[in-house]
Amino acid sequence: MAQKPSIPKGTRDFSPVEVSRREYIIQTIKSHFKNFGFQPIETPSFEKSSTLLGKYGEEGDRLIFKILNSGDFLKKSNEQHLQAKDSNALASQIAEKALKYDLTVPFARYVVQHQHELVFPFKRYQVQPVWRADRPQKGRFREFVQCDADVIGSDSLWQEVEFVMLYDQVFHALQLNGITIKLNNRKILSGFAEVIEEQDKLIDFTVALDKLDKIGEEGVKKEMFEKGIAEEAIAKIQPIFSFSGNFEDKINQLKNILSTSKIGLEGVEELTFVHQALEDYDFKSATLDLDVTLARGLNYYTGAIFEISAPENVKIGSIGGGGRYDDLTGIFGLKNMSGVGISFGLDRIYLVLEELNLFPETVSDSTQILFINFGFEESKYAMKAIMKLRQKGIKAELYPDDTKFKKQMQYADKRGIKYAVIAGESEIEKQAFNLKNLETGEQELVDLETILRKFASQ
Amino acid sequence: MAQKPSIPKGTRDFSPVEVSRREYIIQTIKSHFKNFGFQPIETPSFEKSSTLLGKYGEEGDRLIFKILNSGDFLKKSNEQHLQAKDSNALASQIAEKALKYDLTVPFARYVVQHQHELVFPFKRYQVQPVWRADRPQKGRFREFVQCDADVIGSDSLWQEVEFVMLYDQVFHALQLNGITIKLNNRKILSGFAEVIEEQDKLIDFTVALDKLDKIGEEGVKKEMFEKGIAEEAIAKIQPIFSFSGNFEDKINQLKNILSTSKIGLEGVEELTFVHQALEDYDFKSATLDLDVTLARGLNYYTGAIFEISAPENVKIGSIGGGGRYDDLTGIFGLKNMSGVGISFGLDRIYLVLEELNLFPETVSDSTQILFINFGFEESKYAMKAIMKLRQKGIKAELYPDDTKFKKQMQYADKRGIKYAVIAGESEIEKQAFNLKNLETGEQELVDLETILRKFASQ
Repeated sequence: MAQKPSIPKGTRDFSPVEVSRREYIIQTIKSHFKNFGFQPIETPSFEKSSTLLGKYGEEGDRLIFKILNSGDFLKKSNEQHLQAKDSNALASQIAEKALKYDLTVPFARYVVQHQHELVFPFKRYQVQPVWRADRPQKGRFREFVQCDADVIGSDSLWQEVEFVMLYDQVFHALQLNGITIKLNNRKILSGFAEVIEEQDKLIDFTVALDKLDKIGEEGVKKEMFEKGIAEEAIAKIQPIFSFSGNFEDKINQLKNILSTSKIGLEGVEELTFVHQALEDYDFKSATLDLDVTLARGLNYYTGAIFEISAPENVKIGSIGGGGRYDDLTGIFGLKNMSGVGISFGLDRIYLVLEELNLFPETVSDSTQILFINFGFEESKYAMKAIMKLRQKGIKAELYPDDTKFKKQMQYADKRGIKYAVIAGESEIEKQAFNLKNLETGEQELVDLETILRKFASQ
Repeated sequence: MAQKPSIPKGTRDFSPVEVSRREYIIQTIKSHFKNFGFQPIETPSFEKSSTLLGKYGEEGDRLIFKILNSGDFLKKSNEQHLQAKDSNALASQIAEKALKYDLTVPFARYVVQHQHELVFPFKRYQVQPVWRADRPQKGRFREFVQCDADVIGSDSLWQEVEFVMLYDQVFHALQLNGITIKLNNRKILSGFAEVIEEQDKLIDFTVALDKLDKIGEEGVKKEMFEKGIAEEAIAKIQPIFSFSGNFEDKINQLKNILSTSKIGLEGVEELTFVHQALEDYDFKSATLDLDVTLARGLNYYTGAIFEISAPENVKIGSIGGGGRYDDLTGIFGLKNMSGVGISFGLDRIYLVLEELNLFPETVSDSTQILFINFGFEESKYAMKAIMKLRQKGIKAELYPDDTKFKKQMQYADKRGIKYAVIAGESEIEKQAFNLKNLETGEQELVDLETILRKFASQ
């Protein structure tokens, strides 16, 4: 019985060109991670459900893919839950494993579990797929690769400084210039809440502020007002709605606005450190900006907050981000480990490089020379040459069957192979090869050395 | 509430050294796949259950990890199955996705689904994890990476020839010499069954024969007899129990034994082709052997069967294998596509390289130079140098905090970092650096150029 095959929604097949291009981005990021002293780890695709559940909020719990226990999974399940068709209660009994939802919680679990083998501060990177049962939409998938680097066990702000440099250098290596590295600090946002005396509305306040570039000053103020923040309170931080100038100008304005908030001034100090440490750094692709509206992942960030914007002419939003979290491993029993980490948005970076035509042509290069198959003895002669070419890294292949010449040439054409080698009886006699340029049609009788030289330089 | 963290049985965390070494093996395999003209594809981690179930036999179906449907999965489930606690029947209703069990069935699904975008013969490689709910044991895991290369849409025996070369070259690149590439052919096995007139007992016959090196001639004959194969029948193929000589000798013996079997002689012809095509090939790490007892994966192989043995001094069994299957895509409705493929056993290759101490030291090299942190201005000075070193691919890092000198040196020691740079006020004045060899204790005052030169050559 033939099935018409398809894949689950939100998942993707990757073609050879796509895999090669993704690999190009991933290898570029990895090589910089290594260069900056990060070490790779990998964790299993699935964790115990108890490791993941309760770490991402209620919505997160719902979006975690659970794996059905093997064997007779209903045997020990609760009779009442079964009768009541209580999916929620039953899930925890019949699915004790779950696909990982991000790399951060498994990393925290890894650090705690292996703490006695690790040297702190521990700088690790991790590039692995994660899974979320989110509603699929453009650019959002149920399986996607995360590219993370974190340092754990150091509260030094030099980590933040290095992450700025790392972002700059990775995007420069990808030839993606004109990105903006936006920096903020949770302590600045806490400072604002303190100044307006609405510390308990911090989340409402920042969620509204985060929308400034989408809904404008009036929209933000309206939302804040609706959340119960008084207009007079908002007035105290009026300058942040028309924040401008360079990084230093903004720092100076913040000092004024936050002059009465201890935590706010701490935030200013941290931003100042990072900025001054980068004074002599020669930015290659990025501009550093202070963006006080930035609030991503506020639930767990406690210090620096990063976000990367694509060049202005590409409308795609953030292509990376991260921040500092003071107590990530606490959930697994290891206290006082400050961490800071960043992430690269692989799928979005892919879209940006595609839109701007920045993938090097060589990335998806496949076969360069097709040897035409004229039969067994001719193929043996060809294969000997092919092996020598491959040893030099030149991609050559033999057409597998001695079918019609025309069919073999069509194959070269469809595959986009640019050269063919024709070597029949008369060429073998001369120990030579007819090298045909399939674009120009030109053909020349050459020896193997000539072919090796010609393609080695390509 | 602190949980004591652990991971599901049969899964693994990989440490930095392990990831680096695995990556070394994988990249070596991938670069040869590319070099031989294979193109990469990737398929989702999970497929629709219907794509996978029924493709691996009953035992396989049990070992497939199923993913629980999201949301209220019990809502539409069958009342009777629920009442009866019928896990099997319920599973197909509440788990419509499943983790992939191997790369071959998803590849077949990919080929059928994308047949109009592909050029045949299509040579693809795929390196991705697969999952099996097998009982974990030494060297067998519930999550493991498969490294496969297949050609689909060509019945040319040149594919088999190239796979032999590929195996030889990959293991040579991994410096693992002394492997054996064992070759057999399903048609030889069918031929034996025909000669003894027991075609319907082919599987029983080959399963028994496969055990020759474990249970010996008498053991195999006993098992065959128990399966209802008469002693007089077995006598007709007596020579295969004491098969010896080189490849050509064995071919000649087979011609005799199989002289009355058309399919058997076809198998002989195919083996002869592969052997003759490799006549001039200069084997680098492997010996080619004809092993008529080899029967792996007989359920779907229809032609060539490959298996790779580690060098004799390592007791680990097969480290790779593969074969030809005539109708893989038929299950998804695309007929007459002959395929042939091979696989590398990553975990076992890892164990072999480890046992023989064959991992190059550089594979897991991390930081080469630690810059001691003496405070903000000194760190800025250090960071400038670090950036220049990194640009040249030299791995340098700044200790993140300006803590006690001793603590920083201990960190270098624990990390195995071999050089430290000490640069305080007086060094900055001279625009120089004190480079300390942490193994010998030697220290010299040098400029950045000297450091760059020294490490660039390492």
